[in-house]
Amino acid sequence: MKTLVILALICISFNSYAVCNQQEQFSLVIHGGSGSGYAPTAKQEEILKVMKAATTKGRNMLEAGATAEDVVVATVTTFEDSPLFNAGRGGNPNEQGFVELDASIMRGSDKNAGAVAAVKKIKNPIKAALAVMNNSRHVMFVGEGAENFAQSQKLEMVPNDYFYSGLKFESNSEELGTVGVVAMDRCGDWIAGTSTGGFKTKSPGRVGDSPIIGAGTYAENKTCAVSCTGHGEFFIRYAVSHSICSLIKHKGYSGKEAAEHVLKNELLPAGGKGGVIVIDNEGIPSYFFTTKGMSRGMVTESMDVIVGIY
Amino acid sequence: MKTLVILALICISFNSYAVCNQQEQFSLVIHGGSGSGYAPTAKQEEILKVMKAATTKGRNMLEAGATAEDVVVATVTTFEDSPLFNAGRGGNPNEQGFVELDASIMRGSDKNAGAVAAVKKIKNPIKAALAVMNNSRHVMFVGEGAENFAQSQKLEMVPNDYFYSGLKFESNSEELGTVGVVAMDRCGDWIAGTSTGGFKTKSPGRVGDSPIIGAGTYAENKTCAVSCTGHGEFFIRYAVSHSICSLIKHKGYSGKEAAEHVLKNELLPAGGKGGVIVIDNEGIPSYFFTTKGMSRGMVTESMDVIVGIY
Repeated sequence: MKTLVILALICISFNSYAVCNQQEQFSLVIHGGSGSGYAPTAKQEEILKVMKAATTKGRNMLEAGATAEDVVVATVTTFEDSPLFNAGRGGNPNEQGFVELDASIMRGSDKNAGAVAAVKKIKNPIKAALAVMNNSRHVMFVGEGAENFAQSQKLEMVPNDYFYSGLKFESNSEELGTVGVVAMDRCGDWIAGTSTGGFKTKSPGRVGDSPIIGAGTYAENKTCAVSCTGHGEFFIRYAVSHSICSLIKHKGYSGKEAAEHVLKNELLPAGGKGGVIVIDNEGIPSYFFTTKGMSRGMVTESMDVIVGIY
Repeated sequence: MKTLVILALICISFNSYAVCNQQEQFSLVIHGGSGSGYAPTAKQEEILKVMKAATTKGRNMLEAGATAEDVVVATVTTFEDSPLFNAGRGGNPNEQGFVELDASIMRGSDKNAGAVAAVKKIKNPIKAALAVMNNSRHVMFVGEGAENFAQSQKLEMVPNDYFYSGLKFESNSEELGTVGVVAMDRCGDWIAGTSTGGFKTKSPGRVGDSPIIGAGTYAENKTCAVSCTGHGEFFIRYAVSHSICSLIKHKGYSGKEAAEHVLKNELLPAGGKGGVIVIDNEGIPSYFFTTKGMSRGMVTESMDVIVGIY
């Protein structure tokens, strides 16, 4: 009996720290959108600073054994709270002047997923997506139904004008970008998360690729974790994140090759531009974009943090 | 000049009939949901009659050169107008007692697509999905935004209680099913469409796989047209329609083999049940299901209409 209690305590303690120590390697790639290439120099410098800080923090968490799920949610939350990105606080207003946000997350171990779309009052849509994945029977909620669910989960709600960061009206929305994070942790779990305000002149109720599992976000252990940014309609039609995973799984492409193939050979000829971040079946992080630039940061156990836009 | 006028008249006449005459073969598969196996015998007989009439009508249209797009929309509209199916008029009420409908369509020639989700007032969601595909910049609209768009397209709007068909309250909702149609026409175009009321106890704002391109619906010329029915959350997480297309495209599977692989080897072990209809890269129609039954109809140029449930 005593042994059982001790065993139970050890298990609880392990769970509460969520320590991953089953494999040595971890990987992390983050993006701050494929619009960053159009931002003025001063803003690009700010963006790069945030990319560096976020990648470094994520690396430290993963190194210490944090789960990729925790790292993805923490990093996307940081971006959502910044006015520098088109997600959460910095979300683009739609053609009628209010903000509607989309986000999703997928966990590669059990291929569970959560998504919210067209939400107007949830401060951190990525946290709502996480709650949908972990605490509901469903995968996707939209509009008021999503907001009511988020409230039932005690998530922070804000008035829509919280998202009017002020900053965005000084700048061209082309400079702002969807955010995304893909991570592989020491437990061997691949996770992907994406959050966005959509493009500036979208119609109310329009949903882009970010909250669509298989389009803007996909993850499967030992295969892939993908997050996308760009002209969402094309990313839905070409099921970009799942297409990249399929090329890795069925054709033996590396993450970089798969991303390049889909974005350059399929999307671009159709008229669609954007970028993706990928961790492939070997845990190798990569990115690819067909826009002028895409702000990103990348790190692995054996590689220092690198950030860039072009 | 006279020749030009005659030529123009011929072209106009061809366009208004939308005649396809570029290839001899056509294919059509329809489904009325994977719940039909639980319906009482009398209702199953009714469902089979509708399946036979719809398949025969679709065959006649395709034979005469109608586009697959017209056939998919006409057939799904017939199902939506019937109280026998969980789509349009027969849509399941959610846990709060009102009906929210989802639908999507995808065209394999240009891989354009349209979808609406969580709509409460659009009489024929498939027509709204078609309008999103053909007349908007976007691929997906949800909630009120979708309804406002449908109204701007002069589509018929109805009060939510139109969808309370009466019939559904006499029966177990398990008997009712999502509807879908995949067709290949004489122009060589692969089209897929799906429409649903979602499952009976879903939460408001929940979106299933039917309106998700890559999950419930996918089409690509010379590769596939797929429509799904079943436990939508699993179909989203496994990107079922796009997974089937990827196995056909990258691994040389037939449509039937690909459908069986995804439903039996991936979804079922995870706990997800349902059915799919497929037209594969060779134009061969097939279906597969892991539920007790799935009402369906199937026909090609060289094969008579066959319908079934088990």
